[in-house]
Amino acid sequence: MALKKKPVTGMKDILPAEMQIRDYVLGQIKETYRNFGYSSIETPCVEHIENLLSKQGGDNEKLIFKVLKRGEKLNLETAETENDLTDSGLRYDLTLPLARYYSNNNANLTSPFKALQVGSVWRADRPQKGRYRQFVQCDIDILGDATNQAEIELILATTTALSKICPNNKFEVRVNDRKILRAMAVYSGFPEDDIEKVFITVDKMDKIGMDGVKKELMENGYSEETADKYLDLMGQVVNDASGVRKMGEILEGVLEPGAAENLAEILDTVAEVSTGDFKLSFDPTLVRGMGYYTGTIFEVSMEGFGGSVAGGGRYDKMIGKFTGMDTPACGFSIGFERIVTILMDAGFTVPTVNAKEAWLFEKGMDMSRLSSIMKEAMEERKAGKTILLAQMNKNKKFQKEQLGKEGYTEFKEFYKEALK
Amino acid sequence: MALKKKPVTGMKDILPAEMQIRDYVLGQIKETYRNFGYSSIETPCVEHIENLLSKQGGDNEKLIFKVLKRGEKLNLETAETENDLTDSGLRYDLTLPLARYYSNNNANLTSPFKALQVGSVWRADRPQKGRYRQFVQCDIDILGDATNQAEIELILATTTALSKICPNNKFEVRVNDRKILRAMAVYSGFPEDDIEKVFITVDKMDKIGMDGVKKELMENGYSEETADKYLDLMGQVVNDASGVRKMGEILEGVLEPGAAENLAEILDTVAEVSTGDFKLSFDPTLVRGMGYYTGTIFEVSMEGFGGSVAGGGRYDKMIGKFTGMDTPACGFSIGFERIVTILMDAGFTVPTVNAKEAWLFEKGMDMSRLSSIMKEAMEERKAGKTILLAQMNKNKKFQKEQLGKEGYTEFKEFYKEALK
Repeated sequence: MALKKKPVTGMKDILPAEMQIRDYVLGQIKETYRNFGYSSIETPCVEHIENLLSKQGGDNEKLIFKVLKRGEKLNLETAETENDLTDSGLRYDLTLPLARYYSNNNANLTSPFKALQVGSVWRADRPQKGRYRQFVQCDIDILGDATNQAEIELILATTTALSKICPNNKFEVRVNDRKILRAMAVYSGFPEDDIEKVFITVDKMDKIGMDGVKKELMENGYSEETADKYLDLMGQVVNDASGVRKMGEILEGVLEPGAAENLAEILDTVAEVSTGDFKLSFDPTLVRGMGYYTGTIFEVSMEGFGGSVAGGGRYDKMIGKFTGMDTPACGFSIGFERIVTILMDAGFTVPTVNAKEAWLFEKGMDMSRLSSIMKEAMEERKAGKTILLAQMNKNKKFQKEQLGKEGYTEFKEFYKEALK
Repeated sequence: MALKKKPVTGMKDILPAEMQIRDYVLGQIKETYRNFGYSSIETPCVEHIENLLSKQGGDNEKLIFKVLKRGEKLNLETAETENDLTDSGLRYDLTLPLARYYSNNNANLTSPFKALQVGSVWRADRPQKGRYRQFVQCDIDILGDATNQAEIELILATTTALSKICPNNKFEVRVNDRKILRAMAVYSGFPEDDIEKVFITVDKMDKIGMDGVKKELMENGYSEETADKYLDLMGQVVNDASGVRKMGEILEGVLEPGAAENLAEILDTVAEVSTGDFKLSFDPTLVRGMGYYTGTIFEVSMEGFGGSVAGGGRYDKMIGKFTGMDTPACGFSIGFERIVTILMDAGFTVPTVNAKEAWLFEKGMDMSRLSSIMKEAMEERKAGKTILLAQMNKNKKFQKEQLGKEGYTEFKEFYKEALK
């Protein structure tokens, strides 16, 4: 029986042209992050099912690829539910594995620990254009630092990396703080216990606009007055550090003391220190979906492209779920697949030092002549050049076109008899 | 309830010190292979269960991590066997996914196609020291080339990469051909149909020696005469191209014409072209376990270390299992995890251009002073240096020791009041 040629549903084979861009982008990101002192780490792709289902990952938990138990542990006859069949699953993000990693290894790590993690994650989402069930995430996190120096360094590193990869795209970093978002809600009259639910509605601002959010809040049973007060508050201040401080004044008594100044200082310092060309703003409507955020949140959008290209925030409670002892933590994740799509659509080509050369030799060439060509190729490669040595096809023109797609721009031809 | 801190059984968290070596080794291997004209590709980690169970992967199929069906496809009540519960699994090698990839995409690939694939694979082996259930493979393959230029270029590329990564280790490349191994068996009197079974015994030569192999062959019902003839044959020729040609003469009439000359030419040409310092030899006892090999096979061993550090061979029939049309194929795989272990045990440190600097600042430093330090760090990073900026811990000595493990060799200290 013939085997299946297509990849499994929702996953993809990556062709050489895309791989060149992926490798280049990852190289740039990793180099930048290493210069900022982030240490590469790796966690297994397979994670305990208990950890994956621990409600740290919001809706993503529904999308887990579960791995079947093996050997004696798998008992089909007594299994009543899906969860009796599985003891592990593929990770759906890199944050939960990082929290487990840190709690397992922190005796051997520096404090604070600056982690760089790049790897595939899996989500059984409905497949759609440009979204796959296996995709690469690219995260930096600072663990063990409660000060806003963590946020500042994360923003500086991420914006430096983005500027390198997409020098021609303008981008904007929007920041907010979950504490401010909460205080705004309480100040407006929402009950404390409902706040997570209110956030879910506010998070739709991008899609349904102010009016849509107001409508949904009222449908959920809140008064028009409360909804209006909340939404008005969001538009009341300017989008910089002074706006944050102003918001702090308005929310005095409701907002935790120092929270506004903490965020204002992040905005001031990044603006002061950064050498990159991007817009930085306070966005009181920014929510970000993940339930685990406890403080600052940030998101990067790129001019001309909907959605975000990077995002992150502070999650001071997650590591405590493993250790029983809270550890401050803050992270920033680059939407690697998004960036690759943007670059591919723009016809981006990877900068190279040496042109890639393809040396084509005639079919049936005797080994002594071929071996002298190989020797020459070995010398060039030793000098750092890329030399592809391949037999010339009947359709030489097509062969060169195909090679062109893989980045070969120079060609040499070798015949059985050296041309005179 | 507290979450699980350890990784799942048999898998591991990789600490920064090991990651530095891994990243360096992978970088060196990839750069070398790219210079030889191999194109990076990627296949999904999850593969169709039908493909994984198609008997292309020998014993490895027993070790598959199977992924549970999802949604309506999963029916616990009607499921009778394990295979009713699963539609996919984690790949156990990169060769089967490559064959699927090539048959799916060959219209968009150059011919011959030189593929470079690096990625994790999973096997539910009994965990033991140094062997994990998730590990990285690093393969190059040439698809669509029936000539021995494929073998020659694979051996040249792999030995160049190994020489770069382990310049202080002596290694030996042993080659053989499954056709010669078969012909030797037939010539000695084994029935054609039993040959795969005979190979399984001969493959144990490393572990049980000549005598052990002879004993097992006789236990399996073959005559002492046949066993002796086979084993004598293996010791009868010298281990170079002339030995291969001699073997060809002995086996004339049994061995496919041209097969010995084909292998002899590989040995001659690699010796002629290669600039590396390694031993190359014909090893008529070499079997390699995988059932899919059809011709040349090779294996690399390193002086002072048991087992192999790389291996591969020709598998001309596998792609035909997908397409119905045989495509010549040949590959070489570096035992990446093995190499990393060897380097770690030898206390290898990654060569760096710039020393990594850690800048430690006193706790409670005001933001204006900190921000000027950050500016300075940004400038140094821009120039390509690694600058870690971190708050000074109470136990500064321990902090520096920990940082030393992550490769930091230079330290600067900054205090609230600049020292006069």
